[in-house]
Amino acid sequence: MTTRPGGRSARVRDAVLAATYAELADHGYPALTVDAVATRAGVHKTTVYRRWGGVDDLLADALDQTRETPWPVPDTGTVEGDLVAVTVEIASAFGDAGVPTAVVAASFQSPRAALALQAFYAARQEEAAKVVVRAVDRGELPGGVDPVEVVRLACAPLYYRVFITREPVDAVVAERAAHAAIAAARAGVV
Amino acid sequence: MTTRPGGRSARVRDAVLAATYAELADHGYPALTVDAVATRAGVHKTTVYRRWGGVDDLLADALDQTRETPWPVPDTGTVEGDLVAVTVEIASAFGDAGVPTAVVAASFQSPRAALALQAFYAARQEEAAKVVVRAVDRGELPGGVDPVEVVRLACAPLYYRVFITREPVDAVVAERAAHAAIAAARAGVV
Repeated sequence: MTTRPGGRSARVRDAVLAATYAELADHGYPALTVDAVATRAGVHKTTVYRRWGGVDDLLADALDQTRETPWPVPDTGTVEGDLVAVTVEIASAFGDAGVPTAVVAASFQSPRAALALQAFYAARQEEAAKVVVRAVDRGELPGGVDPVEVVRLACAPLYYRVFITREPVDAVVAERAAHAAIAAARAGVV
Repeated sequence: MTTRPGGRSARVRDAVLAATYAELADHGYPALTVDAVATRAGVHKTTVYRRWGGVDDLLADALDQTRETPWPVPDTGTVEGDLVAVTVEIASAFGDAGVPTAVVAASFQSPRAALALQAFYAARQEEAAKVVVRAVDRGELPGGVDPVEVVRLACAPLYYRVFITREPVDAVVAERAAHAAIAAARAGVV
């Protein structure tokens, strides 16, 4: 079995992890089974058991793969444009039920998924913080700001609505969250 | 059976709902059973089945009871003091595993608990928004602010850390979140 990118092994992994996400979105974590994932991916279930073990391993590997997939950091020329692009993308991903929502729900039932999701968010926050670092370099934000904390402030209102208060999110909510984070950064709070 | 406050029926309800929260915190939603709740509350399980039905009814009624319990809105004299009091209380409640954390986790598995939790947060946000209304009356914040949105901004970073990125929360994080919301309100963003 080769593990080089694009080889058969990589193609099997792609198919199985995509099937894991699809099963999760369609049926939820409690109904996630290796059999259903294998059938959906078109591979034999012993292949899945041998390579991953069980559903928690599948889910953790899917999250790791997503984390390792390059994410294009917005670069619009202004911190407003960049942070709004980040929050609008989040609002779009979480606006309706689907894979991202199902993954967060699964993290409350699978400690392994919770750990993988924690690593995912840590990585994404670090990447998104580049837009704040650039803003400081351009003189748009004061030098003492904590770049990751600005990203947290911009993103938090969206997750809070979707997963805690279960209120709707849209582009208006996303833009306001980004502008609020920038206002806090300019006021020297973060 | 009487339903007057403080009567036997009210005492049974208090005992059963307290036992529901305790079982949830100790064992989680998937392990929540009417039998365990009844045993813990010291009542016969047929009493529970007759009055509530099942665990989802118990959990929804527990959340409704918590929502109806008066919550003392902070009144320190300044919007900074009031909003910090709100966020520090949240950080304290969610700082370690316990009932509040278990309830949010359960809401991902029980649609009835999710609805009850949504009503709970809507009510609490409305109450907490009184501190923003008072701040506007005192001239601390501009007249056009959305009081509930200021509360959302102050609370969201705490829930985001506890339930999404799984980063720690403490009084410092809570104070910063409150001050960031106030800065956004003063900047006219919300």
